[in-house]
Amino acid sequence: MFLVAFVPFNSIAADIKAGKEKSAVCSTCHGDKGISAAPNYPNLAGQKEQYLIKQLKEFKSGVREDTIMASMVMPLSEEDIINLAAYYASLK
Amino acid sequence: MFLVAFVPFNSIAADIKAGKEKSAVCSTCHGDKGISAAPNYPNLAGQKEQYLIKQLKEFKSGVREDTIMASMVMPLSEEDIINLAAYYASLK
Repeated sequence: MFLVAFVPFNSIAADIKAGKEKSAVCSTCHGDKGISAAPNYPNLAGQKEQYLIKQLKEFKSGVREDTIMASMVMPLSEEDIINLAAYYASLK
Repeated sequence: MFLVAFVPFNSIAADIKAGKEKSAVCSTCHGDKGISAAPNYPNLAGQKEQYLIKQLKEFKSGVREDTIMASMVMPLSEEDIINLAAYYASLK
């Protein structure tokens, strides 16, 4: 007998509410509802979830370099990243 | 007598129509109206114009590394970048 285990792309289920709570520090630049007030900061509302996860991970690993974002993502766990991405993707 | 010249952030005026024409190759990944069909590609519709300019320039200079984007931005002039950013920023 064979047991086949599927590991989905994100094995952690996203928690939008937890993402919203974690987003407090992000909102300074990216806005309360993910619409940035400053021209140099991207809107995040409604952005693709997988894209956001990839960018947060790349800021964390240093693949994508940005001084501000490097320090913002430093304390984030894999779970935090998944929750934040789900939260911003859920916004209009 | 003093003459003070102001050089604005973008000295080239954006041409949204030209940006739209130039966006044909972008739409394959980023969608017809800047809403991407693929989870790994970001939506560009309504994104901040200055942010888009900065990212396109960083893909071009290699500061932001991405194999696909590197080849996409290679033929773009400063003017093309400004027009493309204005076009995507103008979309809902």
